[in-house]
Amino acid sequence: MALRAARYIGDQRIEVGNVEAKPPAAGEVTIRVAYNGICGTDLHIVQGHMDTRVALPAVIGHEMSGIISAIGPKVESLAPGQPVTVMPLRWCGECASCRAGHQHICQHLDFVGIDSPGALQEQWTVPASLVVPLPEGVSLEHAALVEPLAVAVHDVRRSRLAAGETVVVIGGGPIGQLIAIVARAAGAEVILAEPDADRRAFAAQCAIVVDPIEGDLAAVVDEHTGGAGADVVFEVAGTRGTALDATRHARTRGRVVFVAIHPEPVPVDLHRIFWRELEVLGARVYEREDFVRAIELLASGVVPADALITRIVPLDDTSEAFEALLAASAMKILVDVQGVRA
Amino acid sequence: MALRAARYIGDQRIEVGNVEAKPPAAGEVTIRVAYNGICGTDLHIVQGHMDTRVALPAVIGHEMSGIISAIGPKVESLAPGQPVTVMPLRWCGECASCRAGHQHICQHLDFVGIDSPGALQEQWTVPASLVVPLPEGVSLEHAALVEPLAVAVHDVRRSRLAAGETVVVIGGGPIGQLIAIVARAAGAEVILAEPDADRRAFAAQCAIVVDPIEGDLAAVVDEHTGGAGADVVFEVAGTRGTALDATRHARTRGRVVFVAIHPEPVPVDLHRIFWRELEVLGARVYEREDFVRAIELLASGVVPADALITRIVPLDDTSEAFEALLAASAMKILVDVQGVRA
Ligand SMILES: [Zn+2]
Ligand SMILES: [Zn+2]
Ligand SMILES: [Zn+2]
Ligand SMILES: [Zn+2]
Repeated sequence: MALRAARYIGDQRIEVGNVEAKPPAAGEVTIRVAYNGICGTDLHIVQGHMDTRVALPAVIGHEMSGIISAIGPKVESLAPGQPVTVMPLRWCGECASCRAGHQHICQHLDFVGIDSPGALQEQWTVPASLVVPLPEGVSLEHAALVEPLAVAVHDVRRSRLAAGETVVVIGGGPIGQLIAIVARAAGAEVILAEPDADRRAFAAQCAIVVDPIEGDLAAVVDEHTGGAGADVVFEVAGTRGTALDATRHARTRGRVVFVAIHPEPVPVDLHRIFWRELEVLGARVYEREDFVRAIELLASGVVPADALITRIVPLDDTSEAFEALLAASAMKILVDVQGVRA
Repeated sequence: MALRAARYIGDQRIEVGNVEAKPPAAGEVTIRVAYNGICGTDLHIVQGHMDTRVALPAVIGHEMSGIISAIGPKVESLAPGQPVTVMPLRWCGECASCRAGHQHICQHLDFVGIDSPGALQEQWTVPASLVVPLPEGVSLEHAALVEPLAVAVHDVRRSRLAAGETVVVIGGGPIGQLIAIVARAAGAEVILAEPDADRRAFAAQCAIVVDPIEGDLAAVVDEHTGGAGADVVFEVAGTRGTALDATRHARTRGRVVFVAIHPEPVPVDLHRIFWRELEVLGARVYEREDFVRAIELLASGVVPADALITRIVPLDDTSEAFEALLAASAMKILVDVQGVRA
């Protein structure tokens, strides 16, 4: 049976065409994919930045929701008809990271949708162990946000954020916004710095917003912390300037989480880390409990999910959706994988 | 009454001359200083690197031991004749750091011996609250090592080192050696990287030693950790190269403590911090419990104190001692403050 799928075929091109169906083997399930969100990593793939890692042609996509359509032998706790999402990580179980209990940062991690086929196809077959069932009350549209929300939940959990603390989020893209939402839901006061006015307006629902170009982030942090500095700083913008600036806004013994990816070493203010005995934390993807918590947050209604979904496009328009995301600062575009162009 | 003292008088010069005695006011004690160790910070002062901070002429010195010679009014728990050392920190008690319980990194910290007169004088008057009594069994010579040892104890405590863990120490100067000794005493396996052969030979008493120029530190770490990486890395060398390299040797979720002072921002491998979810910790000076622990360690005999003390010189030879430390890699030179040139 042939299925429609969106594939990255190299040369910065996406093609929608047919792929072979893969029936579920033992321990696997097949999911009829409903929605798939496009994220910054997907943009990097399609811009060719990850061509050495991605095997072409590549069915990408890792922020999804769907309904189980078939189960393979030896799958016991899942059944056809169940609404689900997928935590797109496969680990080796044997490396030092896995043995230490940190499977999510396995030294041979297979990030499904990057290193192996992803969700931008009508039927997607994955190991049952990756499937996370959805409760009633979380729509399939909203469930496509679980994966990026789990990133934010993980980042906040790594920071050991406590209620009543003050948080600075540097960068108001999708992950920065989600971190602000999760931190606010945890009872923190959030200050978000972002130069784009639309993104600031979006963040204003849950955060004090600052334009770091025209405004003075340090002054705002001082004002809200009695001069002490923030308890936690999240660097989500990923520029050399923000990497250098992030440590400046943390209080004595404060925590700084570098969320954005800096492929090359960048200057960091080690003197400030020393002077204030700061703690700098790396945070990468998520663990199962972060997925569970992300689903709880969506079910509770504290996440403005409808507002985060800028647009939903049919599978045929996947390529245009990538172009739109590269051109403007949309929050999240979902691909309706079963949908056809009107 | 006039006392002899060694003072930094600017122009990279130390002068031994007379200063006025300062009788103890309420809450103060006067200590007849026995020994004072010279450390890297003192070298920086005398090389002129801290001229904007140090008020001239400056009696320096902050690694000391002595006997209480007089107590001022309202000092109850100390008495003349007691052997003591001094934790050379005075805090404001009112800033955000102090209010949060982190007085040792007070935002207005007075580091005694840098920001106010130090121990290179025959009689030294300090607040009683800074005095730490010495138990029997710790000689005054050895007690001059309490302050630098407390730095190492603090660094190791910040790292949350557990028995059985593997530690990498990059840099085998006095603080690197003391960190290795403290980590070993805590039950860790220690790998110390140091290009100087004499320093490597010294460290070989408690650590596996590696020449990072001729040898391959990463290979040694892999060999001793089954390829996982070290639990804790201490960057004590303070070069751009070692700052960049330090993160490389830590395991998944490992801790990296930047001990050396980097006055300017330097490139750090944020990608490695992200990829392995590392934790980077700043560590500065010490708290009272670190002084207490340092004294315990000296009393227990696990610190090779005699070997660490390269030489003891009379006060008149303070200037020559600084020159010797700048010229060669001695571990620790003590000034016998009451001693006169033979
Ligand atoms: Zn993503
Ligand atoms: Zn693994
Ligand atoms: Zn010192
Ligand atoms: Zn203070």
